[in-house]
Amino acid sequence: MGALRLPSLTSIFAISSSRSSVFLRRSKQLHVRKFTATTKVFAQSTPATEVAPAESNQKPPVQEQGITPRSQDFNAWYLDVISMAELADYGPVRGTMVIRPYGYAIWEAIQDYLNVKFKETGHSNMYFPQFIPYSFIEKEASHVEGFSPELALVTVGGGKELEEKLVVRPTSETIVNHMFTQWIHSYRDLPLMINQWANVTRWEMRTKPFIRTLEFLWQEGHTAHATPEEAEREAMQMIDVYTKFSYEEAAIPVIPGRKSRVETFAGADRTYTIEAMMGDRKALQAGTSHNLGQNFSRAFGTQFADENGQRQHVWQTSWAISTRFVGGIIMTHGDDAGLMLPPRLASIQVVIVPIWKKANEKNEVLDAASSIKDVLHTAGIKVKLDESDQRTPGWKFNFWEMKGVPLRIEIGPRDVSSRSVVISRRDIPGKPGKVFGISMEPSVLVPYVKEKLDEIQLSLLDKAKSFRDSNIVDVSSYDELKEAISQGKWARGPWVGSDEDEQTVKEETGATLRCFPFEQPQGPKKCLMTGSPADEVAIFAKSY
Amino acid sequence: MGALRLPSLTSIFAISSSRSSVFLRRSKQLHVRKFTATTKVFAQSTPATEVAPAESNQKPPVQEQGITPRSQDFNAWYLDVISMAELADYGPVRGTMVIRPYGYAIWEAIQDYLNVKFKETGHSNMYFPQFIPYSFIEKEASHVEGFSPELALVTVGGGKELEEKLVVRPTSETIVNHMFTQWIHSYRDLPLMINQWANVTRWEMRTKPFIRTLEFLWQEGHTAHATPEEAEREAMQMIDVYTKFSYEEAAIPVIPGRKSRVETFAGADRTYTIEAMMGDRKALQAGTSHNLGQNFSRAFGTQFADENGQRQHVWQTSWAISTRFVGGIIMTHGDDAGLMLPPRLASIQVVIVPIWKKANEKNEVLDAASSIKDVLHTAGIKVKLDESDQRTPGWKFNFWEMKGVPLRIEIGPRDVSSRSVVISRRDIPGKPGKVFGISMEPSVLVPYVKEKLDEIQLSLLDKAKSFRDSNIVDVSSYDELKEAISQGKWARGPWVGSDEDEQTVKEETGATLRCFPFEQPQGPKKCLMTGSPADEVAIFAKSY
Repeated sequence: MGALRLPSLTSIFAISSSRSSVFLRRSKQLHVRKFTATTKVFAQSTPATEVAPAESNQKPPVQEQGITPRSQDFNAWYLDVISMAELADYGPVRGTMVIRPYGYAIWEAIQDYLNVKFKETGHSNMYFPQFIPYSFIEKEASHVEGFSPELALVTVGGGKELEEKLVVRPTSETIVNHMFTQWIHSYRDLPLMINQWANVTRWEMRTKPFIRTLEFLWQEGHTAHATPEEAEREAMQMIDVYTKFSYEEAAIPVIPGRKSRVETFAGADRTYTIEAMMGDRKALQAGTSHNLGQNFSRAFGTQFADENGQRQHVWQTSWAISTRFVGGIIMTHGDDAGLMLPPRLASIQVVIVPIWKKANEKNEVLDAASSIKDVLHTAGIKVKLDESDQRTPGWKFNFWEMKGVPLRIEIGPRDVSSRSVVISRRDIPGKPGKVFGISMEPSVLVPYVKEKLDEIQLSLLDKAKSFRDSNIVDVSSYDELKEAISQGKWARGPWVGSDEDEQTVKEETGATLRCFPFEQPQGPKKCLMTGSPADEVAIFAKSY
Repeated sequence: MGALRLPSLTSIFAISSSRSSVFLRRSKQLHVRKFTATTKVFAQSTPATEVAPAESNQKPPVQEQGITPRSQDFNAWYLDVISMAELADYGPVRGTMVIRPYGYAIWEAIQDYLNVKFKETGHSNMYFPQFIPYSFIEKEASHVEGFSPELALVTVGGGKELEEKLVVRPTSETIVNHMFTQWIHSYRDLPLMINQWANVTRWEMRTKPFIRTLEFLWQEGHTAHATPEEAEREAMQMIDVYTKFSYEEAAIPVIPGRKSRVETFAGADRTYTIEAMMGDRKALQAGTSHNLGQNFSRAFGTQFADENGQRQHVWQTSWAISTRFVGGIIMTHGDDAGLMLPPRLASIQVVIVPIWKKANEKNEVLDAASSIKDVLHTAGIKVKLDESDQRTPGWKFNFWEMKGVPLRIEIGPRDVSSRSVVISRRDIPGKPGKVFGISMEPSVLVPYVKEKLDEIQLSLLDKAKSFRDSNIVDVSSYDELKEAISQGKWARGPWVGSDEDEQTVKEETGATLRCFPFEQPQGPKKCLMTGSPADEVAIFAKSY
C-alpha cells in the first residue's frame, strides 16, 4: 500500500474531482511477496471522438502498486477498487463499461433475490424490443423533455437510411403502453403486472463505472391498474421490496421517501426513491418506483372497459433498480483495503488459504483444506480454496481482503495436528477479527461459519447505519442547511419551498432535495426556507 | 376449430409461403362455450417504412376462430399458435418481437438449464457493451463481409452526430477480442472462458417470430486457449452441451455435425451445428459452436507469452443458442390443437380443471382441487389450478391443450366422493390419453404424475425421432438427392463436392448442406455429385 504511483492522469470515466485517479489492473505474477499489481492507465479521451484510443500492443509497465487510500481520494479509491478487484473495465466506446465476472456475480446475486420477490408479488418476466420509433418518445410531453437530450439514435439499418429514426431504449414506458393497448380490453385484463431484465442506453456526458454509464443493465417493472389507489399501492409495494432488499441483502440502510416535483421522473405523478449514503457522504439514488397516474395511458390511449362498460384510462406504475446498485455496495462498505461485500451478495463468502513451508507439509494441509471446502460447500456456503503455489499466504490474505470476501479460513501444519483452523473477519481488521483454534469438525465449523456470516451481515448494516445517522443534521434554517452541506453532511429540515426555492438551494449549495422521507418527525414544523407551516421534513444532500 | 376465418392477409412477419396466415389474438371473454378468440390481423408493412402502422384505437372484431390446422398451412399454424398461446407479439418496429410471459418462461427454462451447465464446464458470466466501434467490425476480413449487410448503426448520440458510427452488436467476437488483449498476458491467464446473456441485432429482411427477428436474445460463449487442440475440445464440448440439452430437456433429436466451408460462421475455421427437423420437415439450425482458430486473435493482436516466454496468438471459440430455439420447440412438437411443451421446459406442467354443475358442489370440488395443487407444488411439480368460473370446463380443456400443458387433472363431485381424479395426457389426444380413478392420496398421486411427466418427455423425443428418421433418405446420386428434396425430405449422401457444387444444389433444389453429421456410416463411399471417393456423408435439406 502507498507504494510508488504513476503521475496523475484523468481517466475517461473520471469526474472533475478525481484528478489523481488511475484505473489499475492486477495481473497474475509469480513469486511476488507483497500484493502488487500491473498498472493500466487510461488516457483521457479527446472530447471529439466517442471511441477511446486503441490499446497499444505493448503492455504497461509492472509497478508495485496499492489502492489509493479512501480517505485520500474517494474517487480514485473507487476506480482502483473496481479495477483491482476485477469488477469492471472500460469499454472501447466512451462511457461504456465491461462488467467482469466478479462484478457480474454481484449483479447476478441481486437478480436472484429480486426475481423471486417480483414473482412472489405477482409479476411475470417478459421482453420488449429495444428499438422504439422516435415518434413514441414524443407522445408524452414531459417524457420527451426529460429524455430527448440523452437519446442514442439508430438511423441506418441493413445498409439503408431509415425513414423513421429509432431510439435505443432509455426506458420502456412508451413501447410498453403501445403493447398494453393491444392486451388490455376490460377490467378483467387488469392488473397487468410485468417486469423485464434488460440493457438501457442514456447518452450521459459525465460517466463513472456502475454509477452512470452510457449503457447499463437493469430491471424495469411496468404495471397497469383499474384504480389510482391500486396503482399507488403497487408503487409503494415495490419501493418497499427495494428497501427490504437494501437492508437485508445489501446491508445498505437506505432512506425511502418521495421525490419533490422537481426531481420526479419525466412522465410520473409521483416518484418514490431509496436514497443511500455513500462512504464520502454523497447521496446515491439507488432505486425508484413511479406512480405514473394516467400520463402514459392518456398519451397512448391505454383504456379498459370497467364493470359498467365505461371506457377508462388505466393507472400505471414503473420501477427500476440497475447495475448502479453495485456501485452503491462498493461505496457503502469498502475501506482502504478494498472491497467489502455483504455475505448475502458475495459470490465467495469464505476463502480458505492453506499455509505450508516444507514440501512434506503441503499434502496434509491441502487435504485438510480441501475437505473443509467440501464440508462448507455441502452446507450451502459459497467457498473458494486458493491452493495456488505461486503466491505467498500473505499475498493471498491481502488479495482476498481487497476482493471483499467476508471470511477467511487459514490452515497450516499445526492446525492440521490440532484439528482446528484460524478464522478472520474481513470487516474487523487485524488481530481483533481473528479467532484461533476453531475445531474443523463439521458439527462445530459449519454453524460457526454461518453464525459469523450472519454477524458480518448485521455488522455491516449497523456500521453503515451509524455512519449515516452521524452524518445527517437536523436543520431549521437555510443557514443551518448551508452549514451542514458545506461540511459534506446531509441536511434534514421542514420544507414547503417552491420549485424555485429548491433550485436556489441547488445553485447556492450544490445540494438537491433527495426526498421527503416516509419516516417523519411528529409535531408542528416551519419551513426552513420560507418559515411557513410545513407538514414534512425533506433531506438535502450532494449526490451522484 | 375450422370456424370462420378472415380473408387472407400477409402479416408483416409472414414469409412468402404463408399467404393465408393471420396472427390471432385471444381475449378474455365471458361465458363463451367453445374456445374462441379475438382476431387481430396485421397488415403488411409497406417496404419503405421500418415502423409498422400504428394501432387503431378501435379493437378488431371478435371472431369465432381456431388455430389453422398444421397440415393445411404450417406457417399460418405457427403464427396462430404464437398468438393464441400468448407466446409473442409483433413489436412496433418491423421485424421486432415482444416476448410475452408464457413465451419468455420457455426461454427462462432454457436459461436455467444452460446457465448451470456453462458454470459446471468452467465458464463465468459477464457483460460486454452492445455498442461496437464500426472500425472493429472491419478488422477481421470475412467477419465484416458476413455481417456488414445486417448492421444497425447508431449515428447520433446525445443530440450530436457521432464521429465514428457505432454498430449495435450483431455478435461480440470483435469487442471480446479488444478486451481479451487487455486481460491476457501469459499462459497462466489461459484458458479464459466466459459467457454473456444478451440481446443482439441483425437487420434481417425476412423475419419470423422467434426464428429470425431483428433483435433476439441469446447467450454467447467466448473462450481463449493456449493450443489449437484445447480450442477444438472446447468447441466440441459446447456442441455436446447443446446436443444433450436438445435431447434431454427439449426432446428435440437434433443431428450434431460440422458445417461445410460455405456455411461456416464468418470468421471461424470450423463451425459445429445442431440441426433439428421441424414439423414441416424443414431444417432449423438450432445452435452453433465455432472453432475460431487464430482469425480474431491475429486481427486484434490477442497474444500471450507461453511457458518459454514466446509470444503467441490465442486459439479461440465462440458458441451460441438463442430465442430461435423457442421457435424450434413449437415447430417440433406442436399439433393441430396447438402448442405441446416438453415437461422439463414447461412453466406449467400440470393444470387442474375443477368441474361442478351445482353451486353446492363448487366448494368441495375447489377444496379438493386446491389441496391437490398444494401437494403437487410441494413435490416440486409446476402446477396451476384454473378455478375461474367464467369459462366452462370444456373451454378450459381446449385452452390448456392449446397452451401445450403436458398433463391435465380433472376433478368433479364424483371424484371427490371416490377420492380420485382423472388424468389426461396432452400428447395422446382423446380417450386413449385419459386415465380414470387415480387416487388423490399424495403417496399415489405424486409418483404417478412424476412418472407420467417422464413418460411424456420420452414419448415426445421418440415421436420426433421416428418422424425425423422416416424423413431422411439415404441417397447415392444427385438425382436421388433432387427426388428426396422435392418430396420435402432430407437427403443424406456421400459428399466431397466443391463449393460450386454446393451452390448448384442450392440453386437447383433450394436445399443447403446442413452438416456433415458426427455419426457416419462405415465403409467406402462415392460422392453423390462427383463420383470421387468420399470420407463422409452430408445432409442436405431446405431450411429456415
